[in-house]
Amino acid sequence: MSIKCGIVGAAGFAGVELIRVALRHPEFELVAVTSNELAGTPVAKEYPGFTGATDLVFAKHDDPAIDECDLVFLAVPHTAAMAMAPKIVNRGGVVVDISADFRLKDPAVYEQWYKVPHTQTELLKRAAFGLPELFPDDLARAAQERAQGKGALVGCAGCYPTATSLAAAPAVRMGLVADNAPVVVDAISGVTGAGKKATARTHFCFADENLEAYGVATHRHTPEIEQILGIPGRLVFTPHLAPLNRGLLSTVNLPLAADATRDAQEIIEQYKRYYQDSTFVTVLDKGVMPKTSSVVGTNCAHIGLAVNERVGMLIAVGAIDNLGKGAADQAVQCANIVWGLPENLGLDTVAVPV
Amino acid sequence: MSIKCGIVGAAGFAGVELIRVALRHPEFELVAVTSNELAGTPVAKEYPGFTGATDLVFAKHDDPAIDECDLVFLAVPHTAAMAMAPKIVNRGGVVVDISADFRLKDPAVYEQWYKVPHTQTELLKRAAFGLPELFPDDLARAAQERAQGKGALVGCAGCYPTATSLAAAPAVRMGLVADNAPVVVDAISGVTGAGKKATARTHFCFADENLEAYGVATHRHTPEIEQILGIPGRLVFTPHLAPLNRGLLSTVNLPLAADATRDAQEIIEQYKRYYQDSTFVTVLDKGVMPKTSSVVGTNCAHIGLAVNERVGMLIAVGAIDNLGKGAADQAVQCANIVWGLPENLGLDTVAVPV
Amino acid sequence: MSIKCGIVGAAGFAGVELIRVALRHPEFELVAVTSNELAGTPVAKEYPGFTGATDLVFAKHDDPAIDECDLVFLAVPHTAAMAMAPKIVNRGGVVVDISADFRLKDPAVYEQWYKVPHTQTELLKRAAFGLPELFPDDLARAAQERAQGKGALVGCAGCYPTATSLAAAPAVRMGLVADNAPVVVDAISGVTGAGKKATARTHFCFADENLEAYGVATHRHTPEIEQILGIPGRLVFTPHLAPLNRGLLSTVNLPLAADATRDAQEIIEQYKRYYQDSTFVTVLDKGVMPKTSSVVGTNCAHIGLAVNERVGMLIAVGAIDNLGKGAADQAVQCANIVWGLPENLGLDTVAVPV
Amino acid sequence: MSIKCGIVGAAGFAGVELIRVALRHPEFELVAVTSNELAGTPVAKEYPGFTGATDLVFAKHDDPAIDECDLVFLAVPHTAAMAMAPKIVNRGGVVVDISADFRLKDPAVYEQWYKVPHTQTELLKRAAFGLPELFPDDLARAAQERAQGKGALVGCAGCYPTATSLAAAPAVRMGLVADNAPVVVDAISGVTGAGKKATARTHFCFADENLEAYGVATHRHTPEIEQILGIPGRLVFTPHLAPLNRGLLSTVNLPLAADATRDAQEIIEQYKRYYQDSTFVTVLDKGVMPKTSSVVGTNCAHIGLAVNERVGMLIAVGAIDNLGKGAADQAVQCANIVWGLPENLGLDTVAVPV
Repeated sequence: MSIKCGIVGAAGFAGVELIRVALRHPEFELVAVTSNELAGTPVAKEYPGFTGATDLVFAKHDDPAIDECDLVFLAVPHTAAMAMAPKIVNRGGVVVDISADFRLKDPAVYEQWYKVPHTQTELLKRAAFGLPELFPDDLARAAQERAQGKGALVGCAGCYPTATSLAAAPAVRMGLVADNAPVVVDAISGVTGAGKKATARTHFCFADENLEAYGVATHRHTPEIEQILGIPGRLVFTPHLAPLNRGLLSTVNLPLAADATRDAQEIIEQYKRYYQDSTFVTVLDKGVMPKTSSVVGTNCAHIGLAVNERVGMLIAVGAIDNLGKGAADQAVQCANIVWGLPENLGLDTVAVPV
Repeated sequence: MSIKCGIVGAAGFAGVELIRVALRHPEFELVAVTSNELAGTPVAKEYPGFTGATDLVFAKHDDPAIDECDLVFLAVPHTAAMAMAPKIVNRGGVVVDISADFRLKDPAVYEQWYKVPHTQTELLKRAAFGLPELFPDDLARAAQERAQGKGALVGCAGCYPTATSLAAAPAVRMGLVADNAPVVVDAISGVTGAGKKATARTHFCFADENLEAYGVATHRHTPEIEQILGIPGRLVFTPHLAPLNRGLLSTVNLPLAADATRDAQEIIEQYKRYYQDSTFVTVLDKGVMPKTSSVVGTNCAHIGLAVNERVGMLIAVGAIDNLGKGAADQAVQCANIVWGLPENLGLDTVAVPV
Repeated sequence: MSIKCGIVGAAGFAGVELIRVALRHPEFELVAVTSNELAGTPVAKEYPGFTGATDLVFAKHDDPAIDECDLVFLAVPHTAAMAMAPKIVNRGGVVVDISADFRLKDPAVYEQWYKVPHTQTELLKRAAFGLPELFPDDLARAAQERAQGKGALVGCAGCYPTATSLAAAPAVRMGLVADNAPVVVDAISGVTGAGKKATARTHFCFADENLEAYGVATHRHTPEIEQILGIPGRLVFTPHLAPLNRGLLSTVNLPLAADATRDAQEIIEQYKRYYQDSTFVTVLDKGVMPKTSSVVGTNCAHIGLAVNERVGMLIAVGAIDNLGKGAADQAVQCANIVWGLPENLGLDTVAVPV
Repeated sequence: MSIKCGIVGAAGFAGVELIRVALRHPEFELVAVTSNELAGTPVAKEYPGFTGATDLVFAKHDDPAIDECDLVFLAVPHTAAMAMAPKIVNRGGVVVDISADFRLKDPAVYEQWYKVPHTQTELLKRAAFGLPELFPDDLARAAQERAQGKGALVGCAGCYPTATSLAAAPAVRMGLVADNAPVVVDAISGVTGAGKKATARTHFCFADENLEAYGVATHRHTPEIEQILGIPGRLVFTPHLAPLNRGLLSTVNLPLAADATRDAQEIIEQYKRYYQDSTFVTVLDKGVMPKTSSVVGTNCAHIGLAVNERVGMLIAVGAIDNLGKGAADQAVQCANIVWGLPENLGLDTVAVPV
């Protein structure tokens, strides 16, 4: 099998990680990478780590080669993805979108947080939610549609929602979490999460040796996490920036239901069963907490669990690579599933150890 | 005035920051610095930034010069401080302790969290709590005792409790916070917080490019924060480690009381009034969040505030230098107060800007 | 004494370090800070570490307050300094310039390396070279001119020239170095050396976890170092960028003259005598090499020396803070000297230890 | 083909990188990993990035499974490798040693720099030098010996020698470099180069935000580089430490012969021809200098070239991953060659882009 694939918006950090993974993928033939800003520039000039590995040159987004692709990854800003996806799906192609355009099921919620109307509400209904461990049926349906020649669309989960939901969803779904109580999530991301654009915020000298919170009470991943976990209006989400390139750690504070166990070991065992068939999610043993360095460059997520018995709170900590499981690698995992391939095809599972 | 002072446990990170500040202090005469491990080593050999600035040599903890000091900073591990403090106070000296031995008012709580009995319960009663912005009366009493020749003892607040409480206390004390609901604190520290000992955890290659939580549900600053804020059994505290040297950020999630305002601007104004006479605490304007880099090397704390109206949660974020306001600089601030000096004497308030 | 001073180009990294030092200086009254780009912005908004410490607001470069200043620091790009200096000096003011405009004594060399003509060749003749340890007479003359009401101009040494020359000059001047042989200098700088502008090169994610050489065989500090050391056409200078904020290390390879000693200890003793009256330069003992962290935030330079006896090469390593001794702090040292003040007034000599 | 392989000294940084690569290698079956210190500890416990990827447990160095291996990587300290290698080679096994024991051809030179006698001088004669791009014949001979059932021994080049020699050897071998003149090499390494042991030097808080030179005039890679390049007694080598994990940059200053071209473009073209068949070495275009981040996690080397025409010096800059091409990956490349496999089998050539 050879899947012709293209990446639109390939020059950003998630986009270029998609290039790296796509080039290694045994079933992908990467035929087009686009960037309006860098059109005409070889990938290896902008990112010299690709020297000798590819002769691909960034093209404009409207590169005709995209029209020939079986699979198109969209790594463009929100609203741009919404504008591009219909054409591809309508011709029977598969879109795996890592923008925010096809994540929120309710267009009104999208409009409320993104301050623009959703213009593709019909297509939105077809979108599979790209977080395979939690929404396998969505992706199974997309796979079926693809097989039937109808095209398919996956709206991949964001980076914070991925780490947070993998850590929290088993407890919520198994009924361990109190109804109505607030869920507090404090998360930390490396600077790749702030994007490739050179700004004061991404300047080495301002990011280095600094910690800060941002988007407090306003971050757009809030409604996405609430949607995934089914906790509307209950999330307090604060992201933080720390001086590292890749890595995202989400600390989720889940108030335990009155009748739920306070035994961390028991909860850990429940989690392990929950993820027992998962290739990429590891639930750590009691007393062990995840390190983001353990998952950098991979599609893996590590989850640590502890119980604060005094307060009756489950603390679930999830670690991912924000560009890996939080973006590019998860997008490839979704594409693998849509094509019926092993979900780990072409994906690393071992981080560079130091 | 010349205050003869000594630092016991001066070779650790808080200790050596005390050396730096004490050497610059116009009223301190630093006569003794001790380290059992490095006894005989010049300070400038172990920390070459002091080359040319001091000829002091680390002595053993039982250095007789300590007995001559008017002021002794204890920067030793807990239990060691408890063993050393009585002799000094009993001879009319002043002890400013940055260990945990004289922070917790209830010896039973100390024993529960530190797993050793408190052997100086009488002296503990005399201890002033060293967090001047929140407990000015304690320090005023200590100042009086010193003036009366009775000696004095200050048990300085820990690093996480300082940042957390400065951010949270005004809201709690002004009645904005709901009774009985959990308070979730997620905090991040630079690696100096993990101490000078060379371990796998403090190895550059394991700390660099990594984020992790530690001490989850078990960190010993938990009861201290609960004591300061008066929220026994309600705190969920998770500290995290990030790859920077100095800097501590505490994100405090305070559930607002039913009748409390949801207007962030109003709360910010209340905070500004609360700290209007404070030299070191700055409440930032609406929409601005603190950066730890803004306070590194100083005794300052910056506080940012936001309200999550959907959930009814106040998010208060405090930034300090864990070795500055979180340890050495705050200890000097306390000493200044005990001697009736301007509280900022000898202390920096402007961070190195980049 | 109160010296009214202004900083033109105060928003860049050297400029803002000048603000920090000027605010602490007991004899300076800082009345004007300019930045065409940030005119109207409070210093403390752009650099929140100044919150509470100053109400100064950036003005345009042509701020009339500059005309009232006794002392003006120019921290603007080359050619801009050349355009501004004459007016100030002509009215009897003192200019301390940290651009490259008044460093090179030969206008033809300036034109060759900077690709623009030097338009102030008369004023250039008056310029004192701002590297006090090596050119004390220059500054003494400037001090005299100022005292006579003639105004004065100091062209401060660049960052690489300062570290390199402090490490190399004693050997060269004492005749230890072979004539005619090449002198190879490889130096490393933190990212503040690349300036405040947000670019791909200063983006955290490209600078972090990376090492690279730049300006190879073309860096403009080459003729300046050759001028200082009196080694025209003999310097091979390669600067490198490493992932830290501040700090500059210069490794200078000096071929020893045939009749020069190969005994490192003897050379070290000669260096110590050379710098025996220097407040800021420390020659380290045999076997000890300097760390840039030991001098960050200060005007100090640390120098380490070793001899490769097999090849007959003296390796002299100099460490400075590129924004301290390499820019702002040295400028203040020069100003102190021009006013007959203690050269270390207002300057730190102890780095924050960790 | 399935090559049973073992790694002795697998818990250090080079050793664990060998584990990572060996696990991905399509022809290797990794059956034994040893560490006397961590014997009994699962690899995934010490390095959690391997969680889910391997159940291997560190065994003692004398693990009998090593005796069954076709291929043994020795990642132990010098002298230990010398003690272990004979037994393996004598039974017909292949040893790829990344210690220093089999690099220096002259036992007297070994003894001079390592201060211990070489006890395996016969075996030393058989050792192939493991730097395939420069010594292909050595490895071809080793491959033949292996095929004949005689066992084989490869002594891999060190990290600094690899980067330095790949950058310098073409110029030297093509006669561009002056005889008798000194060759100055200044190199910079990330902290993984300082090893896994937790020391003051590898402590995050001392390595972070610091630059320093070390081993000045004494580093043991000096004679190795001189041997490779054939420049006995002419090398001045100074390594430096910078705050990053992986990455090594070597700046080599080569005095050009009187009759050699000064045209950088011409030299670059000669270099490109020299490495035209090389999978892993890339010679960059004129004006481009290598970044270590471009080769991290790979077996690649990037080389940049410039000429200082005024002095007649070729500056050749080589970038590698000190644990990749500088250690583990190069060892696997050597093993591939010894087995007649494609030299890049199992090795990455594209770095994680950010």
